[in-house]
This record gives sequence, C-alpha cells and structure tokens, in this order.
Amino acid sequence: MAEFALHCFPQSGNAYKVALFLSLAGADWAPIVVDYFGGETRTSKWRETVNEMGEVPVLEHQGQKLSQSGIILDYLSEHFGVFGRKTPEKKREIWRWVLFDNHKFTSYFATHRWLRSFAVPLGHPEVLAFLRNRADGALAIVEKHLTGRSFLVGEGPTIADVSLLGYLYFPVAETGYDLSASHPQIYAWTRRAAALPGWRPPYQLLTGLPTERLAQG
Amino acid sequence: MAEFALHCFPQSGNAYKVALFLSLAGADWAPIVVDYFGGETRTSKWRETVNEMGEVPVLEHQGQKLSQSGIILDYLSEHFGVFGRKTPEKKREIWRWVLFDNHKFTSYFATHRWLRSFAVPLGHPEVLAFLRNRADGALAIVEKHLTGRSFLVGEGPTIADVSLLGYLYFPVAETGYDLSASHPQIYAWTRRAAALPGWRPPYQLLTGLPTERLAQG
Repeated sequence: MAEFALHCFPQSGNAYKVALFLSLAGADWAPIVVDYFGGETRTSKWRETVNEMGEVPVLEHQGQKLSQSGIILDYLSEHFGVFGRKTPEKKREIWRWVLFDNHKFTSYFATHRWLRSFAVPLGHPEVLAFLRNRADGALAIVEKHLTGRSFLVGEGPTIADVSLLGYLYFPVAETGYDLSASHPQIYAWTRRAAALPGWRPPYQLLTGLPTERLAQG
Repeated sequence: MAEFALHCFPQSGNAYKVALFLSLAGADWAPIVVDYFGGETRTSKWRETVNEMGEVPVLEHQGQKLSQSGIILDYLSEHFGVFGRKTPEKKREIWRWVLFDNHKFTSYFATHRWLRSFAVPLGHPEVLAFLRNRADGALAIVEKHLTGRSFLVGEGPTIADVSLLGYLYFPVAETGYDLSASHPQIYAWTRRAAALPGWRPPYQLLTGLPTERLAQG
C-alpha cells in the first residue's frame, strides 16, 4: 500500500494540485478515483466517511484525512521539506498567493471551465461571461506579478506555484484559454514548471492507473 | 498612531473579518478608508504602493503590509495568542475552514451580495441565481457541521469562525439572506459570536471614524 492515498477524479484541478506536488516530490502515492459524475461525493456515506465538504482532494496519510488543497500542500511541503520557504515573511507570502488562488482565481477559472465543458446542462452564457471576466482579472494580476520573476515567491517553485498552476495544465479545449497568445509571462511560467523533474499533465496523474513513478518504485 | 492600520472600506466583508478580529482582541488599531467606489484600489499608484492584488484588507504592522484576510487572521492569531488552536491537527482544521470560506463561500456569497446591492449595473438574474445556488451549497455544509457544535473547530471561537462569519453580519437587505428563517444552526452561531466581548457590526467598525475602543484608549 502506498504511503499517501489521494481521493480524486481526473477532471479535478484541485486534486491535480496535490497529485502534482506528490509527483514532483517523488512521493509514494496512489490515487483513489471517486465516481464524481455518478454522484459518489454527494452521497451521505461519502460525506460521513471521507469529507463532509463533499469535495476532492482528500489526502490520507498516517491515519489522517486532509481536505482543501491549500492546507494539504502546506502539510506536504512541511513533510517533505520542499517547495516552501524558511522565513515567516516568505511563508506568509506563499499563503497570500495560495489564498488568492482559492478566492480569486480557481473559484472562477475552474468553475468557468466546468460550466463550459462538463456541466449538465452547460452554463448560461451570462454566467460564463461573468466567470471569465473574473478569471481574466485574476490572470492579469498574476501576469504582472510574474514580469521579471521566474516563480511567484522568491527563487524557485513553491506550493503557491503548484496551487495557481494546477488548472492551467488542462487542455485549451476545456478551459477556453490559450495562454500562449494572451499571457506570455504566465505561459512561460507554465513551461518552466513543466520542465521540473516529476512533472506530469493532469490526465496522466489522475487516471487511477499506477503512475510511472510507482511502477519504477 | 495606532499599532495596526487597516486599509478597508465599510462595505468590504473581507476587511470586516480583520477588523472584527482586532476589535475582539482589543487591539490598538485604526482604519484607513480607501475610496473604493471612486476607483482608488484600481489605480496604478495604489497597486504599486499598497497591494498589487488591488484588494482590501491590507494590514500594516511593524513595517509590513499583509494582504488576504486568511493569512492576516493567522498572523494576528499568532501575535495575540487568541482564536487559534495548539495542535497541528487543529491548526490544519482551522485552515481547512478558512480555505473553504475563501474558495466555496465568500467567493460566491459576497459576490452575490455585491451584484445584487452595489454593482453598477447590478448583476444579471442568471448570474445572481448561479451565485446564490453556490452560496446555498456552502451554507448547507456549514449548517450541518454546526449541528451539535458551538463553533467550527473545537471549543470556543477561532479565526475560522471569524472568517466564515464576516459576511453574515451585513444587513439582510444587502445579502438577501435571512438566516434566522432558513439556517437555524448558523443563525444561533452568529448570535453566539455576536455576544463575545468586543464584537461590533460591520458599519460600526469600518466607518473610518474612531472606534469606541480607540476612544476609550
């Protein structure tokens, strides 16, 4: 049995954030794929036994069940001693971007993707336009912040990058965002992170099949 | 000059979360009211000198400028030694609810309030319905969690409560939510927190006028 078990499904970018960290850190982990589209996360049983918030990711480790990708990433960063920063000031700066991601970016960008690509029925055009406008505002702030920087906080990647990058690796056909054309700084940042050892795209990490790394181990 | 300066405006529930903590903790603080409706937070000057994310709250303390209410609350909780928890497990549980607030509750509830009460023009009915539906989903999870509990994490209030409660103290006419009728557990929780020493409603704390506590000091 793997050291870390991750409740997830392939289309979840929030689950991918955690899977991406585990892959980058070379962790011994395995996905537990939930039948999201079949309603499993909405059942009383799942909510009582896995997560009352009805969401993936949920990470199981040493008898604990952790949810909300932001605190899972913080936990993993402490556990592995990677993708963090040492000073209180820098740690707060990481949290600031993780919160920005949750509050101002993922909440709109991910929902926009969902309503344009997966929801039944698909989202109303006014709702899609509203969400896209909000996501655009957040992307503009990140684009500006990355000018002259390689990663969000100091030198080298942190969990702030992992968090904000998560949804940017899904196919353009799903997200409706071709960042290579519209956001050169963000696009270059996605390429820098994708060059890190252990990086894999979402649908390779969250298929439920053993990962290449697990197979090697 | 007060020890803490809080960049805010009266209608900002995220600023109120921080102001409420400061008031509950009996801190020496003063508001710096920004002209949000006049576009001050959208100017290059404000973004370069106060917050590149273009948002309040921003807390100034000991030469630092902190933004994102979640990490500001964590910072203040550590600084004052109140509204936190001691064990790593409980600290993570607090973060889980702060992230849930940012990701799944405030991002929709606050935006719904904004688009129905303050935006020019007001939000499209389809967008309002979408946001309300999302906020309802988050409220249902909190309502269930509070059954048999006085506060979100363990005994007594934490910053998780301060964060999630912030937007619930604005007038029903603004939010469109009369929780006393629809969510008895949440409503009782808002009353319990409002009975804490130092509690004040948003438009008393964020007027830009000296607070009662400052006047006493």
